[in-house]
Amino acid sequence: MAEEAKPIRFGIVGCADVARKVSRAITLAPNATIVAVGSRSLDKATKFAASNGLPPNAKVYGSYEGVIEDPEVDAVYMPLPTSLHVKWAVLAAQKRKHVLLETPVALRVSDLDLILEACASNGVQFMDDTMWLHHPRTTKMFQFISDPNHFGRLQSVHSTFSYGVTPYFLENDIRVKPDLDALGALGDIGFYCIGTILWASNYELPKTARALHKPTYNDAGVILACAASLSWEDDKVATFYCSFLSDMSMDIVAMGTKGSLRVLDYAIPNQEKEAKFSTSSNSDWVELSIGWAPHPSEHVVQTDLPQEALLISEFARLVGAIKYNNSKPVDTWPTISRKTQLVVDAVKASIDNGLEPVQIQY
Amino acid sequence: MAEEAKPIRFGIVGCADVARKVSRAITLAPNATIVAVGSRSLDKATKFAASNGLPPNAKVYGSYEGVIEDPEVDAVYMPLPTSLHVKWAVLAAQKRKHVLLETPVALRVSDLDLILEACASNGVQFMDDTMWLHHPRTTKMFQFISDPNHFGRLQSVHSTFSYGVTPYFLENDIRVKPDLDALGALGDIGFYCIGTILWASNYELPKTARALHKPTYNDAGVILACAASLSWEDDKVATFYCSFLSDMSMDIVAMGTKGSLRVLDYAIPNQEKEAKFSTSSNSDWVELSIGWAPHPSEHVVQTDLPQEALLISEFARLVGAIKYNNSKPVDTWPTISRKTQLVVDAVKASIDNGLEPVQIQY
Repeated sequence: MAEEAKPIRFGIVGCADVARKVSRAITLAPNATIVAVGSRSLDKATKFAASNGLPPNAKVYGSYEGVIEDPEVDAVYMPLPTSLHVKWAVLAAQKRKHVLLETPVALRVSDLDLILEACASNGVQFMDDTMWLHHPRTTKMFQFISDPNHFGRLQSVHSTFSYGVTPYFLENDIRVKPDLDALGALGDIGFYCIGTILWASNYELPKTARALHKPTYNDAGVILACAASLSWEDDKVATFYCSFLSDMSMDIVAMGTKGSLRVLDYAIPNQEKEAKFSTSSNSDWVELSIGWAPHPSEHVVQTDLPQEALLISEFARLVGAIKYNNSKPVDTWPTISRKTQLVVDAVKASIDNGLEPVQIQY
Repeated sequence: MAEEAKPIRFGIVGCADVARKVSRAITLAPNATIVAVGSRSLDKATKFAASNGLPPNAKVYGSYEGVIEDPEVDAVYMPLPTSLHVKWAVLAAQKRKHVLLETPVALRVSDLDLILEACASNGVQFMDDTMWLHHPRTTKMFQFISDPNHFGRLQSVHSTFSYGVTPYFLENDIRVKPDLDALGALGDIGFYCIGTILWASNYELPKTARALHKPTYNDAGVILACAASLSWEDDKVATFYCSFLSDMSMDIVAMGTKGSLRVLDYAIPNQEKEAKFSTSSNSDWVELSIGWAPHPSEHVVQTDLPQEALLISEFARLVGAIKYNNSKPVDTWPTISRKTQLVVDAVKASIDNGLEPVQIQY
């Protein structure tokens, strides 16, 4: 096998629930394989390896260090609580491991910058685990909103991400614990809403963020639901709503001067193999304004690999180019993560300052 | 024919484009008929009568007074520029004509109150021309969002109304003229966005309105596009976007604790005879969170009469009850109009005060 054709060797640092999904994705991706998994508990790591179809020769560690220091690991995937990201992602980068980091990437942009600087100075690729950006539907949707004749210039976008959690989650999940994931719903799912808005605006950072109302908090002061608006120097405006207390939703409603885009399940499509979205272009009233046409049209995009395997495949491709071809890490993915975090920070600041507007600067 | 079975006799005050649609609706409604039409120009009124299928014996006036003073007119429909509403609606009420008023109902709530007081003191029914509230789809959707098991408690709602206008419209339409419809897009279509939000919250007035960014204005200072958020004492939050500069949209995305509702064409359905909406309830992740279920489901509601004819029919029914059965005017419709106008005023105030929050009080 040519060097370049060898799969990139992943180590998994932490055995959170989402690691099961990503382990499967690494297994599905043609250019990636799992060689190690580590947990603070050896027992937990062993059980994880056994129950998630890891290769029989995958190493099992009772520590995160074990994975990070393993010379056979090219890249680490880190599904750790956000408060642990800086420590472990920086250590991994210093050990020359490429870093695939679970979202939200950090509690604040200054933390993320420590990670990105460690990755940059050690020449390793950084990517966060925003899977939907790698779905072929997303490519199709982006083609549509980039089309000057059918979508035109973006005017407004609304995004949601919500799911109704269980009483057990509200008591026990790391995403509602102030010492683990202090951003709560804003980090877990607001990060995605903000990501969609930046995506729709082709990553032009908004000028201002404003929280729209006092968020819903748990007793420990962690956000369970919140909403915010973003605005730009020009006439674009965006709003989002994220909640652990509402029924499941992952909506984008984006309007341009000439068309509009709607999707109901942007973050995780209903189904793995096909995903839908709806577009409308240049609609007008019919005679007497008793209706309008053309009607919005549905599009279906097939994919053989689920979006998380496509993410792994893209990450492994970049890692392979660095490892075998002396390529440099690409800046695209760290920049997207950092812009998203900047807006998360601004929304959090607006929440904390009593809903005053907060300026955003790169 | 029994008295109660006689159709209610409408006079049309003004020949704006929308009057063509409403004339057709009066003709379609089984309990209504057109007996007069008036314009400031007799020629225009005559042409209107000829080209819109008015009954041959319908009277044609070269003034608004002619219609209002005609003893054979039970009710007037007024598609006049908003700045003329107070004068003509009050005069009509004083002449004991029931008043069906085009939207936006007024430039400010104090103006609307003059109209509502005139209607109340003269015992005539008031209704505004918000057609979608009379579509059977709206009834079905309201049943859904009122269902504690399938929708639960409203958490957030986003509404849009936009259409891309022509250069001719931007130069000439009354909706962009400061002396005729000074609220511009906020009045013409923001009124509807606000109406949907109030509808979704079962007409519980929000506590606060905030404009989200500096609106787009024309050279005369009339709003062409704007966005705002509304919030309540509890955790509900709403946002809307209205624009003359975006592609056509009339979206509602409403999320409850247990379900969600989506509709793409709430104000004017794509088609007259059937209208769609989509619901989702109690969705949850599938194993490994690689999808979710149940998927949103589509509903189709048929209607024989278009929504504007159903509005006319309901208005005529109320007028008939007053005329023949000594019933009192019902307060439902004036209250909806007034609450909507109160929120319009608050959004306008927030725009004018530099995006500061504005409290709303009934």
